Amino acid sequence: MEKLKKHLKRLSKFENALSLLHWDMETYMPEKAAEKRAEIIGEISTYVFKEFISEKTKELLESATPEDDEDKAILKLVKKEFEKHEKIPPELFKELQFETALSQQAWQKAKEKDNFEIFKPHLKKVVDLEKKVIECIGYESNKYDVLLDDYEPGLKTDQLKSIIVELRKFLVEFINELDSGNKPNTEILKGKYSIEKQKEFSMELLKILNYDLGAGRLDISAHPFTISISHNDIRITTRFDKYDIKNSIFSTIHECGHALYEQGIPEEFRGLPIGDGASMGIHESQSRFWENIVGRSLEFWKFIYPKFTKYFPNFKNVKVEEFWRAINTVERSLIRTEADEVTYNLHIMLRFELEEALINDRITVDELPKLWNKKMKEYLGIVPKNDAFGVLQDVHWAHGSFGYFPSYMLGNLYAAQIYYTMKKDIPNFGEKVEKGQFIEILSWLRKKVHSKGKTLMPIELIKEISNEELNPKYFIEYVKEKFTKVYKK
Amino acid sequence: MEKLKKHLKRLSKFENALSLLHWDMETYMPEKAAEKRAEIIGEISTYVFKEFISEKTKELLESATPEDDEDKAILKLVKKEFEKHEKIPPELFKELQFETALSQQAWQKAKEKDNFEIFKPHLKKVVDLEKKVIECIGYESNKYDVLLDDYEPGLKTDQLKSIIVELRKFLVEFINELDSGNKPNTEILKGKYSIEKQKEFSMELLKILNYDLGAGRLDISAHPFTISISHNDIRITTRFDKYDIKNSIFSTIHECGHALYEQGIPEEFRGLPIGDGASMGIHESQSRFWENIVGRSLEFWKFIYPKFTKYFPNFKNVKVEEFWRAINTVERSLIRTEADEVTYNLHIMLRFELEEALINDRITVDELPKLWNKKMKEYLGIVPKNDAFGVLQDVHWAHGSFGYFPSYMLGNLYAAQIYYTMKKDIPNFGEKVEKGQFIEILSWLRKKVHSKGKTLMPIELIKEISNEELNPKYFIEYVKEKFTKVYKK
Repeated sequence: MEKLKKHLKRLSKFENALSLLHWDMETYMPEKAAEKRAEIIGEISTYVFKEFISEKTKELLESATPEDDEDKAILKLVKKEFEKHEKIPPELFKELQFETALSQQAWQKAKEKDNFEIFKPHLKKVVDLEKKVIECIGYESNKYDVLLDDYEPGLKTDQLKSIIVELRKFLVEFINELDSGNKPNTEILKGKYSIEKQKEFSMELLKILNYDLGAGRLDISAHPFTISISHNDIRITTRFDKYDIKNSIFSTIHECGHALYEQGIPEEFRGLPIGDGASMGIHESQSRFWENIVGRSLEFWKFIYPKFTKYFPNFKNVKVEEFWRAINTVERSLIRTEADEVTYNLHIMLRFELEEALINDRITVDELPKLWNKKMKEYLGIVPKNDAFGVLQDVHWAHGSFGYFPSYMLGNLYAAQIYYTMKKDIPNFGEKVEKGQFIEILSWLRKKVHSKGKTLMPIELIKEISNEELNPKYFIEYVKEKFTKVYKK
Repeated sequence: MEKLKKHLKRLSKFENALSLLHWDMETYMPEKAAEKRAEIIGEISTYVFKEFISEKTKELLESATPEDDEDKAILKLVKKEFEKHEKIPPELFKELQFETALSQQAWQKAKEKDNFEIFKPHLKKVVDLEKKVIECIGYESNKYDVLLDDYEPGLKTDQLKSIIVELRKFLVEFINELDSGNKPNTEILKGKYSIEKQKEFSMELLKILNYDLGAGRLDISAHPFTISISHNDIRITTRFDKYDIKNSIFSTIHECGHALYEQGIPEEFRGLPIGDGASMGIHESQSRFWENIVGRSLEFWKFIYPKFTKYFPNFKNVKVEEFWRAINTVERSLIRTEADEVTYNLHIMLRFELEEALINDRITVDELPKLWNKKMKEYLGIVPKNDAFGVLQDVHWAHGSFGYFPSYMLGNLYAAQIYYTMKKDIPNFGEKVEKGQFIEILSWLRKKVHSKGKTLMPIELIKEISNEELNPKYFIEYVKEKFTKVYKK
C-alpha cells in the first residue's frame, strides 16, 4: 500500500507541473508561445498517463493491502480509473482526443459564423466515439450512466431524471408566478466601474471570506477558474467588466467557494486520488453556496454595503434592499452562464435531456437545433434568434464532455440541502452573515465536506451530512422563500 | 541521430516545465507553497537526470551518425555531459546537493549575523566535495580548468590569468588617474520615482530595443533574471526602487540583452543542447553590450532623454550630458553587484584569484576573510568594515558555483571585442544609437552570435566573429575612451 501511495504521489508531482502550465496558459503566457505550450503539456500528460496505466501500477494495485478506510477509498478509486483505461483501446482514446481537438475548432468557427452545419459533422463523429467508449466500458440499463459516472460517481440517470421532473414542474410555474410580482429596478446597477477599484474590492471579499492568500492568489483570465497547483497553492482567477459590477463580484465569490473547498482538503490526502473534491457536483455546491446562498443574500449585503459604497460611492443613494433585489432579478434569458438562480437549472435540464437522448439514440445530431429551440420555448418561453445564442453557445459537447452539465444543477441542489442542514447547527446563520462572521460557517463546511476529500462518493457524502439522499425540495424551498421576498409577493 | 534528437527533445519538454516552475517561484508563487514547490522541482529534475544518464541515452549516443555540423555539435555536447555524469558517483552527486543546500542556509545566517565562522565549516565541506568531483572528472595541469569548463567550455585557467594580469594593471592605474578628473554630480539623480512610471518606462525600453513582447513578458522579482520557458516564451524580470531610478532602467536593459539573445536562437535548435547560449560569458556579453555599450552611452541618452523626461519631469532642468556623466560615475565600492563598468572587473578578479588558489590548495578557507580584505585594499584601495560587506557578500560559493565568477568579467571583454568588430560593419554605430535605430545592430548580433546557438565553443565563436582570440585590449580601449570623456580629462 505504501509503495502504491509513493508511486501515485510521484506521478502527482508531474500533474502539479501540468496544473501550473495550464494556469500560466490562461493568465500570463505570451501569445506566441501557445503552440509550444500545447506540445509541452502533451508530452508530460502522455508520460503521466502511460505511467498510470503501466504494469507497475497494476502490480502495486494487486499486491496492496489497505490498512484503513482511506486506503480502501484510494484502492477503489485507482482500480476504477485503471480498469476504465484498460478497457478503452489506446487507438480509440487517441482518436477521441484528435477528434475533440478538431471539433473544438469547428465549434469556434460555427459559433462565430452562426452556422451549425460547420459543427455538425464533427459533433456526429464525437458522439459516435463517445458511444464506442461506452460500449467498451459497459453499462447496465442506460448508456448515459457511464458518462454521468465520470462527473458524479454513483449517481444514476434514472435518479437524476426523477429529480428533474419534480424541479422543472416547480420552476416553470414559479417563474410564471413571479411575473405578477414587483420587478426589481435593474437600472440602478448601470454605470462605469474602475477596474482597479473592482480588483481591490475582490481582494477585500477574499479576505473577508477567509480565503488564505498566503496559499493562493487572484489573477485575471477570460473565463474565471480555480486551480490547485499543489497543497498550499490554490489559485483563482476572475474577470472585470467596466460596465458590469456584478460580474467580478460573483465570479470572485464563486471561485472563492471552490478554493475554500480545495484549501480545506487535508495535506495528507494530496497527491492521492482522495485528495480532491468528492465530485464535480459537490465542488459546485461549495462555489454556489458562497456565491448564491451567502453572496446574494440580503444579510451579506447589509454587512458589506458600507465597504462596497466606499469603493463605489455612486451607490450611496441606493438602499441596500433595492440593490439586493436588483442583483437577484429573475429573467428569461438565452445564455446559461448569465442566468439567475431560478432559471439556471432549466438551462441545464434542457442540455441534459438532449444529450441523454442523443447518447441513447432517441434523437440525432441533425435534430439538435430544432429540439433546443423547442425546449427553450417550453421551459423559458423564449426562442433564440440564432444558433450562436442557442445550441452553439457551450463548448462542452465539442470537448466531448457529455455528462458534465448536470453537475452545475446538482451543485445548486446540494448547496441548498447543505444549507438547510447547516442551519440546524447554526440557527442564527443569517445573523452571522449580517455580522460578517464567516468562520463558524466555514468550519462547519470544513468538518462536514472539505476534510472528507474524495474518500466518499457524493451520494454517500450527502447522506452522511444531511441524513438523507439528494432531495430537490430544499432548493425549491430556498428559491420560494428568497424570491418571494425579492419580488415582494 | 534522429532518434537521439527525439529523445533529447522529449526530455527538454520536462525542462520547459521546470523553467516555468522556477519562474513562478520567483514571481507569483504564494509564499506557503515553497516547500511543496521544492518537492515538485526535485521529483521532475530527478526524472530528467535519470533519463539523461540512462542506458537508452548511451545506446542512442553510440549508434548515432551525425549528418552535418549541427549534429556533430549536438553529439559532442551530449557526450561531454554524459561522460561527466558517468564519472561522478551518484552518492557524491547527492552529497554535494545536500551539502550545498545546508551551506546556503548557513551562508544566509552568517551574512545576517556578520559572522564568517557560521559559514566556514560548510564552505570547507563544499570545497572538499568540489575537489573530489574534480578528481573524478580528471584534469591536466590545473584543477580549476574543470570548474571553468562548466561555464566557459574550452577556456583554460592559464589564459584567463594572463588576461587578468594585463587588465588589472590597467584598471588599478586608470582608477587612480580618474581621481584627478572632474567627478560627475550624482546629486542630480536623487529623488523619488513612481514605480508605475518606472514600469511604463521599462516597457517602453523593451519595445525600443526590439524585445518581442508577444513572445515574452516583464515581471518583478527580488533579483532580476531572464528565463527561457520554451521557444517563443522568453521572460525577463526586473526590480523597482523608489529612490533609485538607475536600478530598474539598467536591470531591464541588461535582462533585455539576455532575452534578445534567447529570442534569436533558431527554433530548430530548441530542445537540443545547441539551442542555448554559447557560454555564460557569451550570454553576459549580450546583456552587457546592451546595458553598458548601448544603454550607458551618451548617444543612447541623447535619443531617449525626451521620452525619459516625459516620464520623470524633474530631469527637465538637467542637461543630458550631466545625466549621462552621473550614471557613469566610477566609485571605489564594496559591493560587486553595485559596481560601475570600470571597477566591476576588479571585484571579479579578486574572487577568481581566491577561488582558484582555494581549489589548488594554495590557500585555506580559514584565510579567506583576511585575503579578501587584503586584495580589496590592493585593487580598490578600500577595506570592508565587516565580512557581510566582504567575503560573505555573494551566494556563489555557498551554491558550490566555483568557476562562475569569471563569466561576468568575460562578458565585459567579449562585449567590447564584439563592439569594435561590429563598428567595422556599422561605422556610424553612434549615429544609429542616437537616432534610436537598433535593428541593424540587433541583426548583426543575430547573424554573428544569436543564430549560432551553442554550435560553437565560446573560444571558437569569438574567433569566428572577430578573427582574433579573446583580447582584453578592446575593453581597455573602450573604457579609456569613454571614461576620459565622462571625467573630462
